[in-house]
Amino acid sequence: MKALIYLGPNQKALQERPRPGITAPTDAIVKITRTTICGTDLHILKGDVPTCQPGRILGHEGVGIVDLVGSGVTEFKPGDHVLISCVSACGKCTNCRRQMYSHCATGGWILGNSIDGTQAEFVRIPHADMSLYPIPKGADEDAMVMLSDILPTGHECGVLNGRVAPGASVAIVGAGPVGLAALITAQFYAPGQLIMIDLDEARLELSKRFGATATVNSGDGQAAAAVMRMTDGQGVDTAIEAVGIPATFELCQEIVAAGGTIANIGVHGKKVDLHLERLWDRNLCITTRLVDTSSTPMLLKTLCSHRLDPKPLITHRFKFDQILDAYETFANAAKTRALKVLIEA
Amino acid sequence: MKALIYLGPNQKALQERPRPGITAPTDAIVKITRTTICGTDLHILKGDVPTCQPGRILGHEGVGIVDLVGSGVTEFKPGDHVLISCVSACGKCTNCRRQMYSHCATGGWILGNSIDGTQAEFVRIPHADMSLYPIPKGADEDAMVMLSDILPTGHECGVLNGRVAPGASVAIVGAGPVGLAALITAQFYAPGQLIMIDLDEARLELSKRFGATATVNSGDGQAAAAVMRMTDGQGVDTAIEAVGIPATFELCQEIVAAGGTIANIGVHGKKVDLHLERLWDRNLCITTRLVDTSSTPMLLKTLCSHRLDPKPLITHRFKFDQILDAYETFANAAKTRALKVLIEA
Amino acid sequence: MKALIYLGPNQKALQERPRPGITAPTDAIVKITRTTICGTDLHILKGDVPTCQPGRILGHEGVGIVDLVGSGVTEFKPGDHVLISCVSACGKCTNCRRQMYSHCATGGWILGNSIDGTQAEFVRIPHADMSLYPIPKGADEDAMVMLSDILPTGHECGVLNGRVAPGASVAIVGAGPVGLAALITAQFYAPGQLIMIDLDEARLELSKRFGATATVNSGDGQAAAAVMRMTDGQGVDTAIEAVGIPATFELCQEIVAAGGTIANIGVHGKKVDLHLERLWDRNLCITTRLVDTSSTPMLLKTLCSHRLDPKPLITHRFKFDQILDAYETFANAAKTRALKVLIEA
Amino acid sequence: MKALIYLGPNQKALQERPRPGITAPTDAIVKITRTTICGTDLHILKGDVPTCQPGRILGHEGVGIVDLVGSGVTEFKPGDHVLISCVSACGKCTNCRRQMYSHCATGGWILGNSIDGTQAEFVRIPHADMSLYPIPKGADEDAMVMLSDILPTGHECGVLNGRVAPGASVAIVGAGPVGLAALITAQFYAPGQLIMIDLDEARLELSKRFGATATVNSGDGQAAAAVMRMTDGQGVDTAIEAVGIPATFELCQEIVAAGGTIANIGVHGKKVDLHLERLWDRNLCITTRLVDTSSTPMLLKTLCSHRLDPKPLITHRFKFDQILDAYETFANAAKTRALKVLIEA
Repeated sequence: MKALIYLGPNQKALQERPRPGITAPTDAIVKITRTTICGTDLHILKGDVPTCQPGRILGHEGVGIVDLVGSGVTEFKPGDHVLISCVSACGKCTNCRRQMYSHCATGGWILGNSIDGTQAEFVRIPHADMSLYPIPKGADEDAMVMLSDILPTGHECGVLNGRVAPGASVAIVGAGPVGLAALITAQFYAPGQLIMIDLDEARLELSKRFGATATVNSGDGQAAAAVMRMTDGQGVDTAIEAVGIPATFELCQEIVAAGGTIANIGVHGKKVDLHLERLWDRNLCITTRLVDTSSTPMLLKTLCSHRLDPKPLITHRFKFDQILDAYETFANAAKTRALKVLIEA
Repeated sequence: MKALIYLGPNQKALQERPRPGITAPTDAIVKITRTTICGTDLHILKGDVPTCQPGRILGHEGVGIVDLVGSGVTEFKPGDHVLISCVSACGKCTNCRRQMYSHCATGGWILGNSIDGTQAEFVRIPHADMSLYPIPKGADEDAMVMLSDILPTGHECGVLNGRVAPGASVAIVGAGPVGLAALITAQFYAPGQLIMIDLDEARLELSKRFGATATVNSGDGQAAAAVMRMTDGQGVDTAIEAVGIPATFELCQEIVAAGGTIANIGVHGKKVDLHLERLWDRNLCITTRLVDTSSTPMLLKTLCSHRLDPKPLITHRFKFDQILDAYETFANAAKTRALKVLIEA
Repeated sequence: MKALIYLGPNQKALQERPRPGITAPTDAIVKITRTTICGTDLHILKGDVPTCQPGRILGHEGVGIVDLVGSGVTEFKPGDHVLISCVSACGKCTNCRRQMYSHCATGGWILGNSIDGTQAEFVRIPHADMSLYPIPKGADEDAMVMLSDILPTGHECGVLNGRVAPGASVAIVGAGPVGLAALITAQFYAPGQLIMIDLDEARLELSKRFGATATVNSGDGQAAAAVMRMTDGQGVDTAIEAVGIPATFELCQEIVAAGGTIANIGVHGKKVDLHLERLWDRNLCITTRLVDTSSTPMLLKTLCSHRLDPKPLITHRFKFDQILDAYETFANAAKTRALKVLIEA
Repeated sequence: MKALIYLGPNQKALQERPRPGITAPTDAIVKITRTTICGTDLHILKGDVPTCQPGRILGHEGVGIVDLVGSGVTEFKPGDHVLISCVSACGKCTNCRRQMYSHCATGGWILGNSIDGTQAEFVRIPHADMSLYPIPKGADEDAMVMLSDILPTGHECGVLNGRVAPGASVAIVGAGPVGLAALITAQFYAPGQLIMIDLDEARLELSKRFGATATVNSGDGQAAAAVMRMTDGQGVDTAIEAVGIPATFELCQEIVAAGGTIANIGVHGKKVDLHLERLWDRNLCITTRLVDTSSTPMLLKTLCSHRLDPKPLITHRFKFDQILDAYETFANAAKTRALKVLIEA
């Protein structure tokens, strides 16, 4: 089969590989019909993710059709249309029992990282019963790809951790795909203000279409002052960090209200300053999280009941044999205006 | 009346002052029968608390007898024995309605800070109905002084924010009075492990009598390794920071388990490093808090039902005219082994 | 001034009364600009509410302009436009501190019940600081009247108690004004299914415009079967009782899923059967509640941010001197199709 | 092997049966070393549990040693000492994912009910990975038997559902084994009052040794009045029903405070009256639950850290071939003073 292979820092190729087989009774083999590229794939390609070694098939998102199942798989059978979770979960370990699937003793984010991933014609899914979800008949499978990673990430790490509540004020720093996913899913909880902060005017403009009630361009270094003005000098109840650099985490500390929450989504490569000298008495909660995909069943329900429409996140479409073009488009988002690129079998 | 006055960095004196009077209908004047000294008073004396200006009567803890009440006070009358909360609360503003009394629009921690405090014969208590608590008949008023600040601080900032739960593992960094207050109140929730960490062997020894299940002397720089060994390499569910310096906050980051909480109690004078480069995916919650004393009614109930015994925190006793000696004893705790010093009228 | 007086079972009149005055420092006198009639007013008129004695001015909803304030009122001054909460709260007692204002030691639902109410030119509001809310400039004061009682009631007793959550299934039994208020506010939490159940086809039709995703006419006695079909035989996560008779509470027990919630809003005059013989092992939660109006600040924010539009609940308008006609219209809702009648000064 | 067989209403026998074998890859066969008898076994013997048909081996509690495991079992191997949960859980279905194992699509309470149980030399445990727990080395295996059912039942259905909190007032109606299990586990949360109510003076006396702060003999019909006196006329924050008849549920309705919770544990055979005519405005929460054993891992931790000591619940001991005597002793508890009878292999 064809697969997109990580070959070491800044090197990748579309290569021929043997089809994967069942290696444990709880495995399933899924024929990929749609996949996509994540910002994390770009991190890997920069050489920043040491758990991912050269030779690895990338990708941790996708939908497909079950091809084979191991003898221990009870919830799926060949022919089933399935959503693949970016996180694999045994369902039995201490962390899985508390729904913290991201830290499953034998799972977590392993797809396209420590085991081969979804940017291929077929993929082996370990712990299939807990790591796949049936796609309801008639559901839009393009939209469904957004539920592998980006929507649960925005929802769990940003919105749930950020305790977004009806009437509350929310600022999201970073209007990239994951920031937009937080913006979309924040609206499940009817916040009063949804302020989007970014350097890119085009993304800010776009965010209004996704439901932002206000936007702030942080290019002039006055973003904190702008947010304070919009919130009567109190700051926001929830500040969501969706970039992953010290400057944006710093901004979150400047704009969060007493009693508020900073919910970090960004993947950070460096430590940040935490200003406890002025925040120790501010009654804050600061959270970090690798997505658990524990909210995937809920997201599926909201998708089916049309309360969630992630389709507009898909800006470009490619066939699988054009996946190198897809990477090119996605990696140059500032120029191409790409959010998520859909790659079809 | 006699009062302990802050006269500027490193200067204090016991001076004669006029008795306070009612200035707002919601005020009460309380005759102090017992007060104590807090670590924060020492901070003020170092000149580290800019809101507290020279000339101020110090002190934000105590019990006493109501002497006068304003026309708007409905819950208390002269002669009532009362516990004074270190935090004043109007009960009406947005923050008070969510029980975040520490950030009351016209209150918060003002006693012995921006208004005169309790280290005097009489004190004016603003918002008296919300800031005083009736002392049940027959209650031990010495023990009650511990409920003005230290016990709610340990409980709310450490234990509640730290989400201490039955069977869970807890480490408390800092075995001073507030760390011990966290240790005592953590036991309301039946944790499985209560590990106390400090540099002072005597305090560690003492903490065993207060309920620690294990102690770690961090003097050798191996505290993190010791905690990991005690927790099967997982780290603790809750790490409580009760010192207020970068090194101890760093230690908390090293020992907290995935999915765990770091609850900061310490008053920090400097920023700290937050290692998001390795914590971004650890599903942590980091909290800060100025005590709200919202749990004071509960603490009163546990005291009356003998589930809480804070009396052993009191190591020394003084008469009010010996208050300078009391400061001396409290400021040299390493030598005097002082935890809390009780100062009686 | 003119006022609507309850004169005993089935008797009422529009009479001349003296204007109320300040009787406690925490009182305010409010000139009523808009009020409305509640189903509870009809209960009183039937003689079903023993705490309300003949001679009482009815009414517990309204907006107006502050005319006078007592010396202890700090949050309002004459001329302020205010929303009147149907529940009065001292803010200081044990129940108020836990935001259970409905059971305030000296407040609760007393307006138009044990003290004179809002269906008059002026009303005295006790505990004014906690029982009035400032109306933001430019807000629609007609819509605001819906926030005195009906919207917080639907939201708190139905939606919050019912733990309505994104993607969840909800059935509301009773499509009267309070059932519709639950329907409207349930949408803050993005439920997947919102099934409205009633006997009146016109109200069911109307409920679709308010956001119901499905309707069931219970006239044929097959409502439970219909709901089970709509929920794959599981029943609903949340069943909201908004009628107040044994038959509708019975229906809720038939349609609630294992692990679900029955949230009672209805005012019941008789005991009901609780089928513990088949529900003891169903992991249910059954709640009752008198509205606390603790969510009023949040509702104000959602109203101002246009996430809440209660205006369509107002079906009829009257001037205050037509209030007897308003009662006539409201009492004959089946014929008049009245939901809420707005009565303007 | 020998097994205790239900032969129809009021009939049971100790009979020879073939040893069970693996029937699904997720099964384990456990050699029973200790088991016990539950009140539910007596219900079955009266013919009150239609899901349990004649011919069934009874018993859903016990500890033992793994004898065989299916190919899909990953967490256990022959020789492991294990605690058997009374509830079997697949871990994968919708209800298991929310930890409502009691309503597992292919599990729940099936042992000794719809499949053969633990009162035998060997038992087949379906979904073994999720339904067994490793017994820590050195743990007291007698005490451990109390964790199969009675302790999680008292804790989850009574204490957790009842939201027992520090300082709160709790009344437990019924001082039988499950009421005592609630009493024991309530103390994890430091309640201020723990009032035990029963008709049997000996059990009330015993309950004091298990931590009751007060007892009420309900024989004189004045129990409600007694509880109101003990709670300053407010009633209790939590009323736990641990009997299962209308009279005791009625009592709970009389003694629960506004804003309180009635947590039902009792297995009811008849409907009860719910007095909504006086409770609709009392802000109550009434819960039902079949134990999920989701708190078993926590209970194991508290047992190992000596915060939980269930051993005194064991009043009698028998060898397995004396199991009919054990039933006799347990069924005549009023005379024998039996709480739990331990049956050893």
